[in-house]
Amino acid sequence: MASAPKANAVVGQSGGPTAVINASLVGVIEEAKKHPEIQTIYGARHAVAGMVKDEFIDLGKISPATLETVAASPSSALGTSRDKPDAAYCRRILEVFQKRNIRYFFYIGGNDSANTAYIVSTVAKEANYDMRAFHVPKTVDNDLLVTDHCPGYGSAAKFVACALIGDDLDNRALPGVKIDVIMGRHAGFLTAAAALGKKRDDDGPHLVYVPERPVSIGKFLGDVEAVYKKLGRAVIAVSEGICDADGETWAKKIAQTAEKDPHGNIQLSGTGALADFLAAQVKNNLNIKRVRADTFGYLQRSFPGFQSPVDADEARRCGRQAVLYAMEQDNGSVAMKRTGNGKSYGMELFRTELKNVAEKTKSMPDEFLNADGNGVTDKFLEYAMPLAGGLPQTEYLAGYPKV
Amino acid sequence: MASAPKANAVVGQSGGPTAVINASLVGVIEEAKKHPEIQTIYGARHAVAGMVKDEFIDLGKISPATLETVAASPSSALGTSRDKPDAAYCRRILEVFQKRNIRYFFYIGGNDSANTAYIVSTVAKEANYDMRAFHVPKTVDNDLLVTDHCPGYGSAAKFVACALIGDDLDNRALPGVKIDVIMGRHAGFLTAAAALGKKRDDDGPHLVYVPERPVSIGKFLGDVEAVYKKLGRAVIAVSEGICDADGETWAKKIAQTAEKDPHGNIQLSGTGALADFLAAQVKNNLNIKRVRADTFGYLQRSFPGFQSPVDADEARRCGRQAVLYAMEQDNGSVAMKRTGNGKSYGMELFRTELKNVAEKTKSMPDEFLNADGNGVTDKFLEYAMPLAGGLPQTEYLAGYPKV
Repeated sequence: MASAPKANAVVGQSGGPTAVINASLVGVIEEAKKHPEIQTIYGARHAVAGMVKDEFIDLGKISPATLETVAASPSSALGTSRDKPDAAYCRRILEVFQKRNIRYFFYIGGNDSANTAYIVSTVAKEANYDMRAFHVPKTVDNDLLVTDHCPGYGSAAKFVACALIGDDLDNRALPGVKIDVIMGRHAGFLTAAAALGKKRDDDGPHLVYVPERPVSIGKFLGDVEAVYKKLGRAVIAVSEGICDADGETWAKKIAQTAEKDPHGNIQLSGTGALADFLAAQVKNNLNIKRVRADTFGYLQRSFPGFQSPVDADEARRCGRQAVLYAMEQDNGSVAMKRTGNGKSYGMELFRTELKNVAEKTKSMPDEFLNADGNGVTDKFLEYAMPLAGGLPQTEYLAGYPKV
Repeated sequence: MASAPKANAVVGQSGGPTAVINASLVGVIEEAKKHPEIQTIYGARHAVAGMVKDEFIDLGKISPATLETVAASPSSALGTSRDKPDAAYCRRILEVFQKRNIRYFFYIGGNDSANTAYIVSTVAKEANYDMRAFHVPKTVDNDLLVTDHCPGYGSAAKFVACALIGDDLDNRALPGVKIDVIMGRHAGFLTAAAALGKKRDDDGPHLVYVPERPVSIGKFLGDVEAVYKKLGRAVIAVSEGICDADGETWAKKIAQTAEKDPHGNIQLSGTGALADFLAAQVKNNLNIKRVRADTFGYLQRSFPGFQSPVDADEARRCGRQAVLYAMEQDNGSVAMKRTGNGKSYGMELFRTELKNVAEKTKSMPDEFLNADGNGVTDKFLEYAMPLAGGLPQTEYLAGYPKV
């Protein structure tokens, strides 16, 4: 292994924003500043899109106070992109890197970002260009392989858990059926976090549906009816990627039945369509009057002032560690390993190969989901609870003894 | 005026939950405990519904520590009801009050609750029953008359302002058109709070539509197109009660065009319908690819751990003051008056007649809305900012100078 080159570095943020992706960014910047091998620290505007267009800002010039505000801010402070670069795209990136003597590439994002780092690293090797490429994990879906969990998940889980704590109290006060649609097209980790705030036996969510467990409309309605008959109310958490018994997503099925509006335009199957469809099913088939549905949408990933402290700290550590690895190795992805026993939570970092993370995704393990396919297990709660970093205590009085 | 009777008290919570209605409840309880005239402090389960059914809990037995948790909890800890009692209903309530020697009635809620307190007070007088009835204001919509603002509004405003801060950062990172539908069927105060977090000239929301200013689809699309052409993105806050130029709500018009689904059921015009409709309009008519819409739903009123400190404090003071007034007068509603100059914020309480608040609602004054009907004025920001009680600082880097 050659010693670390004296050269410039670039950092980018890719994919959907999270509450702590900027903490990872600041982790990269603050660690990079400590290493004389790294000269200018460029920030790529809008990820790979800014790299091919040669659009950078100088991150070394930002004051420590501003960096702390950045670290606490949701979304991607450098801007992001949905581009999925191929080898040709990455060779154009490499040309820009060569022109600017960029030999350190830090890319914060999901599995696509790990793949981009892998391709850039590969085309650099082919060009005999001495360069180091590291991926820093990020996703609210928590669906990356190898790592125990992903930065971004804990804060989103905290938001969803709090939303359900509040929504369950709301539903106790005004009973009925409430359906909440939560992010997660393929993995149910975030929807499962809806259950983290449950304390009393009859706390909601009473039913949790994730993409890993297909469910027919009939089964769904039967579950809802059973809870409603028992409690006089029901709070239900549903992944946006929930599938019918045949494996097809409900969202897609609903879109196929979309009608044209009076102006002849196709009605968009928008963010509220799945929630409204489920509410209509319950209302029409179970004859329950008070049925409401909310779709949490972008709030889950971008709500400010509500980071999980554990998540923010880990995101920053991942950013710092990427720089430390780059001082010694060519490429890799930063991953987290859980340490400590059941009572205390700890986490340590390790390096994994980019191709171990690239393009693939992780689903919830069977042990996190109940046998009936409509709830989570204690094992899941033990897994996710430390990541949310503490939930608010609440109290409800109407169940106290009558006098 | 007769001296305050030695008797029992009841407190109830009505209408939709808020983040601080339980702070008002605890204010009533803690003040009531100080007055020997008040013996048992009953809590009515599910508001007037519990009163007619004689379903009460004993609030005097709850520990101070639990009461603090209650005060910090969203939703209505006693449960609530949408019943709108008439005189006959209130006479049944009075029978229960007489049976239990309840002579203090504290009712936390909106204009309907003030009306209920008024009717109960009237039927008590008719029955020569010495009783005191006080209304404690509560609403996220901020639409009560007389009072400068309502407990519950500040926390909901903080939630909406934060949501838009995050959503605007999200939209900067991944540009496109983003539409957020916010609570408020008749009054636009909560939707207007979307603008509280704006700092930079190009910060969103770039357009704000409230029920007080009807807007046609053509005008709406023209506004969106103008912002999008200038900034390459647009963030838009819309009240759920937004009206077309003819004064009819868009929500109602959309419901009228609802189609049947393949099973022959009428599709419910659910919470996401307005947002999806607006997104489809923008997508189809302006040929903009990335258009997203969220409907914030119940999160706005029931999110835990996110009270405005100012709002929580004022809600509690209103509860305490209702008890103090009841020691000296027959009935009334607690109202807030703003004190201090533009730089410092202060608030003092006063009593107003129940019938001044009952049944009527307040709209946003003209001076809070811009001439074009698509934004708020500085006067509104000065009015609402202190109530939200502080917003998180954020930073965005991609706009920094290119190097």
